[in-house]
Amino acid sequence: MKKLIGDPRAVVDEAVRGVAAAHPDLLRVSLDPVYIVRADAPVSGKVGLVSGGGSGHEPLHGGFVGPGMLDGAVPGAVFTSPTPDPIVAATKAVDGGAGVLHIVKNYTGDVLNFETAAELAEAEGVRVKAVVVDDDVAVKDSLYTAGRRGVAGTVLVERLAGAAAERGDDLDAVAAIAERVNSRTRSMGVALTAPVVPHVGTPSFDIGDDAIEIGIGIHGEPGRERIPLEPVDAIVDRLLGAVIEDLPFESGDRVLLLVNGMGGTPLIELYIAFRRAAEVLAERGLELTRSLVGNYVTSLEMQGMSITLLQLDDELVELWDAPVQTVALRWGR
Amino acid sequence: MKKLIGDPRAVVDEAVRGVAAAHPDLLRVSLDPVYIVRADAPVSGKVGLVSGGGSGHEPLHGGFVGPGMLDGAVPGAVFTSPTPDPIVAATKAVDGGAGVLHIVKNYTGDVLNFETAAELAEAEGVRVKAVVVDDDVAVKDSLYTAGRRGVAGTVLVERLAGAAAERGDDLDAVAAIAERVNSRTRSMGVALTAPVVPHVGTPSFDIGDDAIEIGIGIHGEPGRERIPLEPVDAIVDRLLGAVIEDLPFESGDRVLLLVNGMGGTPLIELYIAFRRAAEVLAERGLELTRSLVGNYVTSLEMQGMSITLLQLDDELVELWDAPVQTVALRWGR
Repeated sequence: MKKLIGDPRAVVDEAVRGVAAAHPDLLRVSLDPVYIVRADAPVSGKVGLVSGGGSGHEPLHGGFVGPGMLDGAVPGAVFTSPTPDPIVAATKAVDGGAGVLHIVKNYTGDVLNFETAAELAEAEGVRVKAVVVDDDVAVKDSLYTAGRRGVAGTVLVERLAGAAAERGDDLDAVAAIAERVNSRTRSMGVALTAPVVPHVGTPSFDIGDDAIEIGIGIHGEPGRERIPLEPVDAIVDRLLGAVIEDLPFESGDRVLLLVNGMGGTPLIELYIAFRRAAEVLAERGLELTRSLVGNYVTSLEMQGMSITLLQLDDELVELWDAPVQTVALRWGR
Repeated sequence: MKKLIGDPRAVVDEAVRGVAAAHPDLLRVSLDPVYIVRADAPVSGKVGLVSGGGSGHEPLHGGFVGPGMLDGAVPGAVFTSPTPDPIVAATKAVDGGAGVLHIVKNYTGDVLNFETAAELAEAEGVRVKAVVVDDDVAVKDSLYTAGRRGVAGTVLVERLAGAAAERGDDLDAVAAIAERVNSRTRSMGVALTAPVVPHVGTPSFDIGDDAIEIGIGIHGEPGRERIPLEPVDAIVDRLLGAVIEDLPFESGDRVLLLVNGMGGTPLIELYIAFRRAAEVLAERGLELTRSLVGNYVTSLEMQGMSITLLQLDDELVELWDAPVQTVALRWGR
């Protein structure tokens, strides 16, 4: 194992200390229990948004905490769900009196622990709703999940629900936006290499020098099939074809296209893939209306990417364009 | 070679097509010759800033084109200087009548080609000045360079000179800011693995499973020494120690700390390194005033990082905090 780390068991603790040192203007970090909230939390009268999950997917979720997106993020150990305690603590820390929305990727551990945390927080008087993100079209049921997995589409749910909360929507309305975004979002990924979990020390799976895994999960869970390495255009056609046919997206739809790096793939390759994806959208009559390219939901140093499409409408475009100020995603003037 | 590419000779062309498809709101892309300028270029009366160099370091430089930073970027082939022609074309495309500053990383090919381009542009009536960035303390003279190499500090020069141009400074003043930033910036890097240049197809150098290269260049050029893999704290101490002693940075200085990923290292590791770097600054009495963590100047999929320190003053802090709207760096409200 070749990593820039010290004690493999301390990576999350040491990383959140780094986050605290780097971003005191944007973030406030609790070390025991571990969670991250926006510096001005709780925002009185605003619905709070909390997400979380195993670490190793950075910048998800801590990089998306700030005005216009999440109020709090709860990192578990690497590829391991956070326990209910820190979720409860983060939920209480961001409750400004208007309730809290939990945004949960569909993994069995995450769903159970967020459910328990919601019950505990409600017992303390915080109104909580939850939306479960399940955008991955690759497989139904998998190693850690009943139903479809939640993958890179989570960023879009966090962003658009966050914008809705920021404009003053109430808890039911913010939850409805999150559900709408999830229902209109589809993703699929590919891996060229395997990630190495620090406290394990060896690659999460074996893959030959010439093979790729189509439909990989963000923890390296098996996908649809293992095939020989292909030119990128053929890979994009596979991923995007499956995504388009699933919803289905239809000619005339306006879409947001996210080409997401899995961690170890250079940005230049993501743009090469984006080029082909944009061509495919044009061929299918889909209107490329908003774009995002980069490492947003990663799997440690895994090489690969995922492609996500969101079917937009006027309101979602307006929410997308609203100001956002997080470490990993920001715009607006 | 395992990459998300098609024809290895087409990677730059295909990537800039992807950039054009993804960011039409921010960028305008020329395919022949290849260069990228901000969508509203030229900005009348504003000094134009152009940088460039070999591809494979993304988001440098195209990701830093936009208001508050560069006006134009010229990508060469992977790890290969752009020829004078596209540099001249980009220079003319961003000239709003106030002259153009070239920001050049200190590599022999870049320096020569930017010099030739400056002469050609001046012959066509564009006033051009150049600043050469040479922030790498690791080695004096190297494989492709006379004197010190220009590495991640380039981002700081581009950002702060860009902010000066945006506020209306004239060409001499913008060049003076760029020189001041360069003179106060020092960097050093480490590699855990080697990058693979697409049209070569094999790793740029051999490094054992347990060795790291201290003082690596951004093309994988040799550094100071090859040593056995160490815990991250020891590596940070080596890099930051060399950086601090070089200027030297002294107790009481306010500094900007950039922990830059080389491409293949997960963000969680960069934050672990940042934590230790912040501790070292505190021990030395240096005031951590501004921070940047992420992949800004990369070497394809190389695993590793660099650490950069900039000695700040009131004016540089003000310029750093001014609005900036590029693909890879943006803030301000």
